[in-house]
Amino acid sequence: MSASSPTSPRLPQIREDTVFNRLVIFSPARSRRPSDFKFHPPDGAPNNNPNPPSCPFCLGRERECAPEIFRIPPGTDDWKIRVIENLYPALRRDLEGSQVGDRGEAGCDEGRRAVIGFGFHDVVIETPFHSIHLPDLSAAEIGEVVLSYRERVRQLSNHGSIEYVQVFKNYGASAGASMTHSHAQMIALPLVPPTVSARLDSMKEVFDKSGKCGICEAQSANILINESGHFFAVVPFAASFPFEVWIIPREHTPYFHDLDEQKAVDFGGLLKLILLKLSKQLNDPPYNYMIHSSPFHLPASHLPCAHWFIQIVPQLNAVGGFELGSGCYINPIFPEDAAEILSYEEED
Amino acid sequence: MSASSPTSPRLPQIREDTVFNRLVIFSPARSRRPSDFKFHPPDGAPNNNPNPPSCPFCLGRERECAPEIFRIPPGTDDWKIRVIENLYPALRRDLEGSQVGDRGEAGCDEGRRAVIGFGFHDVVIETPFHSIHLPDLSAAEIGEVVLSYRERVRQLSNHGSIEYVQVFKNYGASAGASMTHSHAQMIALPLVPPTVSARLDSMKEVFDKSGKCGICEAQSANILINESGHFFAVVPFAASFPFEVWIIPREHTPYFHDLDEQKAVDFGGLLKLILLKLSKQLNDPPYNYMIHSSPFHLPASHLPCAHWFIQIVPQLNAVGGFELGSGCYINPIFPEDAAEILSYEEED
Ligand SMILES: Nc1ncnc2c1ncn2[C@@H]1O[C@H](COP(=O)(O)OP(=O)(O)O[C@H]2O[C@H](CO)[C@@H](O)[C@H](O)[C@H]2O)[C@@H](O)[C@H]1O
Ligand SMILES: Nc1ncnc2c1ncn2[C@@H]1O[C@H](COP(=O)(O)OP(=O)(O)O[C@H]2O[C@H](CO)[C@@H](O)[C@H](O)[C@H]2O)[C@@H](O)[C@H]1O
Repeated sequence: MSASSPTSPRLPQIREDTVFNRLVIFSPARSRRPSDFKFHPPDGAPNNNPNPPSCPFCLGRERECAPEIFRIPPGTDDWKIRVIENLYPALRRDLEGSQVGDRGEAGCDEGRRAVIGFGFHDVVIETPFHSIHLPDLSAAEIGEVVLSYRERVRQLSNHGSIEYVQVFKNYGASAGASMTHSHAQMIALPLVPPTVSARLDSMKEVFDKSGKCGICEAQSANILINESGHFFAVVPFAASFPFEVWIIPREHTPYFHDLDEQKAVDFGGLLKLILLKLSKQLNDPPYNYMIHSSPFHLPASHLPCAHWFIQIVPQLNAVGGFELGSGCYINPIFPEDAAEILSYEEED
Repeated sequence: MSASSPTSPRLPQIREDTVFNRLVIFSPARSRRPSDFKFHPPDGAPNNNPNPPSCPFCLGRERECAPEIFRIPPGTDDWKIRVIENLYPALRRDLEGSQVGDRGEAGCDEGRRAVIGFGFHDVVIETPFHSIHLPDLSAAEIGEVVLSYRERVRQLSNHGSIEYVQVFKNYGASAGASMTHSHAQMIALPLVPPTVSARLDSMKEVFDKSGKCGICEAQSANILINESGHFFAVVPFAASFPFEVWIIPREHTPYFHDLDEQKAVDFGGLLKLILLKLSKQLNDPPYNYMIHSSPFHLPASHLPCAHWFIQIVPQLNAVGGFELGSGCYINPIFPEDAAEILSYEEED
């Protein structure tokens, strides 16, 4: 399973990420560069705060939260998971049908394109206990968390005005998190983001050219880390970030929210394993994960090419002006080398 | 010049950025959300280190640097600006014509796309003195710095295998900087990054539809901050980041490296003013700037639609999983409000 070690230092390569349509520069030399900053943020900020003065996501503090959408199990005080509205939402569910300027706010001029900020922004509280993090849960419990994401995405998919839902998790301040209690979020948008359309266009292009799905083909010996019955985990061939991992369903299927109960538990086990490995090998790094699913009204031309997956990104470095400007990423670690490190199995 | 204050709290909007083809959610409610992290990285990391144990970019330490490309003024020990090779380059200038696998390194299989990491990665040392930052220089001196960028881009534009040069600056650890001595960088690529092509395609689409250039049109009263003879500075209508500023040449022209001496000094003055304002209003934030110019071999169809500009982005928050996953940004500050704050003029 593990890749063979390179005999000599690797030369830099520019690889094409055909899913996100971006170039990634792999350059091991970059990892040796010095820094004269006294503090580096990723080291300076602990990911956890075991005793915050008050945490509205903890058991017993439900009244300090925005309204609940559902809990698991339903109708009990002794909940395991809660899906709630975000108290500081990016988009507002009460604005459906409103137009920019309706309520006297500043509109936009000269044909600039703006729509009112209608949409849904929800939080999934993944455990009632502040000290528990997602990978501390069992495979079956993580499966339940994943099913709660699925359940809420299903509800949102039935809303006629919603086109796309982004499910994501922020863990640690450098990954953007403002709350330390284990949670994920989802934002439901009335438009398909151009970046999401571009991903699906890019996958269609690969499909049309090669007759193959780029996500199905991502499984290759030297970048494979782990497998389960229904999923496999790889460091992608053109990973933008060091130690980035994708968990991919073996079944070529466009929608995350079609996941069934059995596969959710299988997925939970693999997600747990990967998060534990990243935590162990990289010393509990901040990370994000993003579920890349498909827009709800995907054109029939694109449906056969779509394949959902989850992208897990440890946040080890701040990105800089090169990435912001060019959209290219610089990754000092070749995926084959990252995969080798993440392939080590515990002895016990 | 300043925009009128909104009378009621603004409702969220989703705006379309037609240059970078991305959606941006403007949501003032987001700025009120709490955080239970004990430390937040942007506050924790000072941007400067006045006395690093040793800085290779300082006057007298030239021998600790990678080879020099040129200095200003030429042939003097008492230099003002040096353009040097990056000692830990992302791309290597000695690899032209090499193929992946040529030197026995691991190649790529199954038709995955990779090319050898040929290219140029240079550093511009903007002052010989460690304690001086770019906006401390005079307009004329900043003009000289900008002309040194231009000079190196011109040299690289004459290299037949180079397609695009990204000029950028990282200031402060949260903006990715590893060195505190004032500097910028540029990376010359043998391929046009897809994100850069997408920007030019997007501008062409606007041009074809409206007959107008989206960059020329960016000048509008409520987002304008400052003007000079040849440039204007705005917070763009669909700014991805709070207090992001673009400085745009009035002349509709595709290439930064066509800038002449007189305009460079004019530009230097406006850049200085904006950097001083950001530093004052936002308490010396980390920031990046990126020069968005055009690929050297831009197709004739796109040439009339292209217009270079510089994007200045204060780094006030870490981005999270939503932005990474969907490519949409959430900005808690409406551009009109940011522009109003940045429009205040000093009395003295
Ligand atoms: N009592 C309460 N009831 C209900 N909800 C509550 C609440 N108190 C707080 N919240 C919400 O809980 C959420 C916690 O989310 P995270 O910690 O994952 O990151 P956040 O969304 O703050 O920002 C990160 O993620 C977003 C999206 O990627 C980025 O835009 C941003 O820059 C980054 O910091 C916040 O959105 C907050 O509004
Ligand atoms: N003696 C010497 N001679 C010559 N050059 C020397 C040198 N010592 C150091 N250098 C180079 O000086 C540069 C300083 O650059 P910055 O501080 O702007 O950020 P850096 O490139 O490290 O990374 C940031 O910018 C890049 C590009 O955006 C991101 O990939 C990255 O994540 C982010 O931290 C480094 O590239 C380093 O290699």
